[in-house]
Amino acid sequence: MNYRELSLKKHGEWKGKIETVCRVPVASREELSVAYTPGVAEPCMAIHNDVEKSFELTRRWNTVPVITDGTAVLGLGDIGPEAGMPVMEGKCALFKAFGNVDAYPICLGTKDTEEIIKTVKIMAGSFGGINLEDISAPRCFEIEARLKAELDIPVFHDDQHGTAIVVAAALLNALKITRKKVDEIAIVINGAGAAGIAIAKFLLKLGAKHITMCDLKGIICKGVDWLNRAQSEVAEVTNLRHITGGLADAMKGADVFIGVSGPHCVTKDMVKSMADKSVLFTCANPVPEIEPQDASDAGAYIVGTGSSEYPNQINNVLVFPGLFRGALDVRATTVNTEMMIAAAQAIADCVSDKELSRDYILPYAYDRKAHDDVAKAVAQAAIKSGVAKNTKR
Amino acid sequence: MNYRELSLKKHGEWKGKIETVCRVPVASREELSVAYTPGVAEPCMAIHNDVEKSFELTRRWNTVPVITDGTAVLGLGDIGPEAGMPVMEGKCALFKAFGNVDAYPICLGTKDTEEIIKTVKIMAGSFGGINLEDISAPRCFEIEARLKAELDIPVFHDDQHGTAIVVAAALLNALKITRKKVDEIAIVINGAGAAGIAIAKFLLKLGAKHITMCDLKGIICKGVDWLNRAQSEVAEVTNLRHITGGLADAMKGADVFIGVSGPHCVTKDMVKSMADKSVLFTCANPVPEIEPQDASDAGAYIVGTGSSEYPNQINNVLVFPGLFRGALDVRATTVNTEMMIAAAQAIADCVSDKELSRDYILPYAYDRKAHDDVAKAVAQAAIKSGVAKNTKR
Repeated sequence: MNYRELSLKKHGEWKGKIETVCRVPVASREELSVAYTPGVAEPCMAIHNDVEKSFELTRRWNTVPVITDGTAVLGLGDIGPEAGMPVMEGKCALFKAFGNVDAYPICLGTKDTEEIIKTVKIMAGSFGGINLEDISAPRCFEIEARLKAELDIPVFHDDQHGTAIVVAAALLNALKITRKKVDEIAIVINGAGAAGIAIAKFLLKLGAKHITMCDLKGIICKGVDWLNRAQSEVAEVTNLRHITGGLADAMKGADVFIGVSGPHCVTKDMVKSMADKSVLFTCANPVPEIEPQDASDAGAYIVGTGSSEYPNQINNVLVFPGLFRGALDVRATTVNTEMMIAAAQAIADCVSDKELSRDYILPYAYDRKAHDDVAKAVAQAAIKSGVAKNTKR
Repeated sequence: MNYRELSLKKHGEWKGKIETVCRVPVASREELSVAYTPGVAEPCMAIHNDVEKSFELTRRWNTVPVITDGTAVLGLGDIGPEAGMPVMEGKCALFKAFGNVDAYPICLGTKDTEEIIKTVKIMAGSFGGINLEDISAPRCFEIEARLKAELDIPVFHDDQHGTAIVVAAALLNALKITRKKVDEIAIVINGAGAAGIAIAKFLLKLGAKHITMCDLKGIICKGVDWLNRAQSEVAEVTNLRHITGGLADAMKGADVFIGVSGPHCVTKDMVKSMADKSVLFTCANPVPEIEPQDASDAGAYIVGTGSSEYPNQINNVLVFPGLFRGALDVRATTVNTEMMIAAAQAIADCVSDKELSRDYILPYAYDRKAHDDVAKAVAQAAIKSGVAKNTKR
């Protein structure tokens, strides 16, 4: 039985990957009077007098909804809110297991940007942070930007920034092995959707200078007429040599290929055309841009994929539990670049120089120490960059 | 330390009365591949092909949000969504403890009827049922009615129907003691808001014929000019003798007084004016319409309150956990009158004829058997009335 068949069977047995539990005693009249009426009126009034107290007297401080509209679930596309639920529940399970964050899935039956923004804003008073998930580009950019601007709790679109952070961590460690410098290498990113654009912007912040992005229609270049707004923005700061053509053209001489696109769009010849000690992160899920064995056969020096079935899994599971744990712990009002860089660095640092190898550039997704390290680094970065309301941690 | 002070202290220590837990193993690469990617794609696609499967492959079947806008929290009034959270969390804790329902609070930062309806509809695909809570009248009527009509999962406004059901259960047992018949007694309901109107409508369904409702402005009578739409509706079917005046006028000769109003609005003289073997359910919380001792001194035969500090606590905690347990177990598409009557009867039947006394007309809120009995009765009523999608229970 393969993973997909086994997963279907197990989901039928589990009937839900998370559940809520009651944390307080309610087995007698006295206990009910404290946890519920009449006693509960007092914490209610305390919050009414000072809304900040909702972070002290309720579970708000630790609660993050995983919100989707089901339009970009895994590589499956627009499958609807209900069908996205197994992924969202899985995310919630991982939030708890690796970050001790109380998360629950809210799948929205609308694709309208304004309706999604409004719905999340209306609910925000119940939560300590907001995790947006699997909302398709370009709507996801507007939704995240508006919510970040209008809410004072951390808002994080995992498909963009979770992916960008873990890819960056993988790249930092790969460069240690290939002994190349981030500001000198030529990077190709294939797939100019939410993840690809976020990766490009984030790598620029980490010092990358030579990034070329590709999409199905070819290389993203300033001035070409098929770009959406997000792609036009990124065209301003990437492909500074204004290369045109297709993916094969982009990959010639490149040091690093990052794929967040689709199955088998990279050929052996393309890999052969890359620079010496080439690095390929083929993150398309479940089928990568090129099979790892084919990439190695064609001369790739380091290969990472989105799958747990090969070495170097590049999965944002390494990011979101620890990132929110850290943000919630210090009551961060946002997730800023400093916190994201701290997360990437912390993930990279989990692999010691001694352990580091072509087949081990990232910690395993289920490595609890990695999540703890991310949480600590993110909390410190939030405090240092002045966005933490609680600096006593 | 009284309950309110103790409750504030405890809420500060608890920092949340519920939390989520992960129900599946995620401690290895293999386990992650089943609970999360790549395996999870298969249950996603199964639901995409048949949305009903979301009730089998995710926690949807057991999940109910407790949704409020914070406008009518306890007797505290419009204290805002964040301040309502301790009550909503308490409700969620009781949902789990007594009904094994996974509930979580969603407090909405809007009082706009259409926005609330839209928000709940947009989220509904994530849930097995919807519990509306502490939304002020008359908006709550429209919100509940529209959601019931437009959704195919149970929608239940607890302040209306939970209260109506538990009051009805108390009345059924009180009448056994006073040996009066429901169709012969004169009933006064004080407080023509959400709960009062729901109680009136429900008691009519149980056979009551002589109900008089009062509000701050006086007796509700067909044709008076200060009625809102819900009150006008109820004026058509209550106070058939068209009595006018105030509460004191209404209570003269009444067999039963049901208060869902405010503190100390009933005097000893009013109680004295009632019929022999009078019954008073003074449910105002935290301060009742008349202190129980004063009511007894004035000749009341049976007294119930909303508080756990006196005998005969009339609290909808006895209703919602079991009612939703039963509805979810048989995948009911709504909560209909048959299910509500079954719940009231089941609660009443929890007190045997032998146990029944003036000071013990209802089971205790923390009596697990009562909740189990409600669940069974509601499930059977749903099946019998043809609203259960799963009749295999």
